[in-house]
Amino acid sequence: MSYFSFEVLHASKKSQARVGRIHTPHGIIDTPNFVAVGTNGTLKALDNVQVNKLGLQLMFCNTYHLLVHPGTDVIKSAGGLHTYINRPYPIITDSGGFQVFSLAYGTVKEELKSKGLNRHAEAVIKISEEGVLFRSYRDGSPILLTPESSIQAQKALGADIIIPFDELPPYHIDPKKLKQSLDRTHRWEERSLMEHRKDPQQQAIYAVVHGGIDKALRTLSCQVLSNLPFDGYAIGGSVGKNRQEMVEMLAHTVPQLPKNLPNHLLGIADLPSIDEIVKLGIDTFDSSYPTRSARHGSVFVSNGQQLKLLQTKYKDFHEPIERTCECYTCLNYTVSYIHHLYKAKELAGLTLATLHNVHFMVQLMKNYQEAILNDEL
Amino acid sequence: MSYFSFEVLHASKKSQARVGRIHTPHGIIDTPNFVAVGTNGTLKALDNVQVNKLGLQLMFCNTYHLLVHPGTDVIKSAGGLHTYINRPYPIITDSGGFQVFSLAYGTVKEELKSKGLNRHAEAVIKISEEGVLFRSYRDGSPILLTPESSIQAQKALGADIIIPFDELPPYHIDPKKLKQSLDRTHRWEERSLMEHRKDPQQQAIYAVVHGGIDKALRTLSCQVLSNLPFDGYAIGGSVGKNRQEMVEMLAHTVPQLPKNLPNHLLGIADLPSIDEIVKLGIDTFDSSYPTRSARHGSVFVSNGQQLKLLQTKYKDFHEPIERTCECYTCLNYTVSYIHHLYKAKELAGLTLATLHNVHFMVQLMKNYQEAILNDEL
Repeated sequence: MSYFSFEVLHASKKSQARVGRIHTPHGIIDTPNFVAVGTNGTLKALDNVQVNKLGLQLMFCNTYHLLVHPGTDVIKSAGGLHTYINRPYPIITDSGGFQVFSLAYGTVKEELKSKGLNRHAEAVIKISEEGVLFRSYRDGSPILLTPESSIQAQKALGADIIIPFDELPPYHIDPKKLKQSLDRTHRWEERSLMEHRKDPQQQAIYAVVHGGIDKALRTLSCQVLSNLPFDGYAIGGSVGKNRQEMVEMLAHTVPQLPKNLPNHLLGIADLPSIDEIVKLGIDTFDSSYPTRSARHGSVFVSNGQQLKLLQTKYKDFHEPIERTCECYTCLNYTVSYIHHLYKAKELAGLTLATLHNVHFMVQLMKNYQEAILNDEL
Repeated sequence: MSYFSFEVLHASKKSQARVGRIHTPHGIIDTPNFVAVGTNGTLKALDNVQVNKLGLQLMFCNTYHLLVHPGTDVIKSAGGLHTYINRPYPIITDSGGFQVFSLAYGTVKEELKSKGLNRHAEAVIKISEEGVLFRSYRDGSPILLTPESSIQAQKALGADIIIPFDELPPYHIDPKKLKQSLDRTHRWEERSLMEHRKDPQQQAIYAVVHGGIDKALRTLSCQVLSNLPFDGYAIGGSVGKNRQEMVEMLAHTVPQLPKNLPNHLLGIADLPSIDEIVKLGIDTFDSSYPTRSARHGSVFVSNGQQLKLLQTKYKDFHEPIERTCECYTCLNYTVSYIHHLYKAKELAGLTLATLHNVHFMVQLMKNYQEAILNDEL
């Protein structure tokens, strides 16, 4: 499989952190690295030419959203997702399962806030061994998502890395039901892998390790999935209700993954967590946190803090967000002006803040790679 | 006054159309030309580096909005509007009067739709010979706008071209009241001019000819204001309830303006009107129509039509908006993708459509200039 490979360049002497390089048909992903989320085929408030210039090496797109609109047939007829969205660099898509089950169960955060069942719960019509039947949030039409149809959708999209269909069980779940869910997820993942291998199309497929916060089940999941010829290993499902639980779970799980293959942590990239997960040996991780923070007026600065653009004290702060930052926003605009754009509800504010945060993440990960190469982390 | 000048390069043999060049401290404005509206110091959905690249030669900013936020003191402390918003090219600001009186009377369009008094009518506390006292829509604080304070605000902003304080009377107005309003506007404009001339600061000031749809009053306004040493002449107030009334009014008014000075038509730039106003000898004209149309999913194409991006037929139209267009959007994205961005409510769609429409206007005006130089218009 020459179109996809992974090499570990250096393992830190101080932690499990490692520097590596993933080779894909659309270029290299240096690891550890942040993966930005472009749900609908674009990072919110940016267009892809802007993103391409930022040096972001991997973008995460959501199959579920692209299935609902414009539909995978449209994207296939355009020549695939890379052409459709004008991104010549690596893309990863998920299976659609996460969104479908988020609709059914809500997110862990919603659960912990006791919001109960998500208001979209009625969107899921039926979950069976076959897969999940749900209603499109756009027009109410029924969509059947199975391991096979998810893979076929991801083949139509043509991302460099795809993900098998899995179930996202709720955080609060009866242990017996969690085991049943895990077993079914393993069967679904194997079906996904089989479907993929009929015609790999230069795509790599990552397994998704599940088991919630049950260590024995995480071990079982690593064992079952390691025996299957996946190209990499993602860690999914609930990894805990707080950072401490997450760290414990990852410290337990990561060492049980094949060391010669890349791993990916699904859905986590807040700044305090990055420090932890990189040290635990995570290669890539995705989250909409940096882009969502930007839209809420929160921009990252290099002391690990966030500057809240809407605060009145920034009204006449005629300096860039950071003097040393070389992003488009900092080279061209002051905090005072961006503050004004937010206050005046001008969309340009969202774009400028997002450009800064994504640039920040790209630079941050270069710094992490450097620190690991120097055994400083 | 070496910092501002106007030269007529060619007068068409077929119409009143003319090609000219306005020299300002921040560069040249070729005429006839479209002036895009950047109310809050930015074209909606774009940032100014993007606008600078589009070749837009003049941007219109609204003193009223900038007074309310961030305040002219903030912009002055940044070094003026050009620095604050990062636009090294010419800027024109209005007096704030238009917005204040729109609050009081509503727009002509609202009036014609019988919406009656605008819902913000209570924002205007008092209109007197002195000026207008109104409440900030942001925080309710009282703001007094007078000819002198409007000019001082525009001096703090530092645009290349400024506009005297005037009253915008409603379309349906008693002839006697219209005459009273006109007389007061003339007094306000003269006070504005006097205030400006105390310290010109390399700014040019355009008079605003009023008189509504009363030809005699338009003639009077041209006479009164032509006798004052303004640097250019804008045409403001109601110029009619439809295109025919507007054409009649401009055909009557434009010939009465000083021919050696630039003129400007306030607030009109829909495509069908441009053809008419250019032939009547208008040099510059502003409108938010091209940018607002873009945000509503309407993009301009060279046959004079508009392509409605939200129409389902564009779902799988894998071509740029126009094959021959060389804008950022057409060089990088297809209609299908932009359609998808609109359907998915991604802000990037608004940005891409706006970039196209502004580029279209810049090219359109180059074509008009060329046609006039060749006596084809």
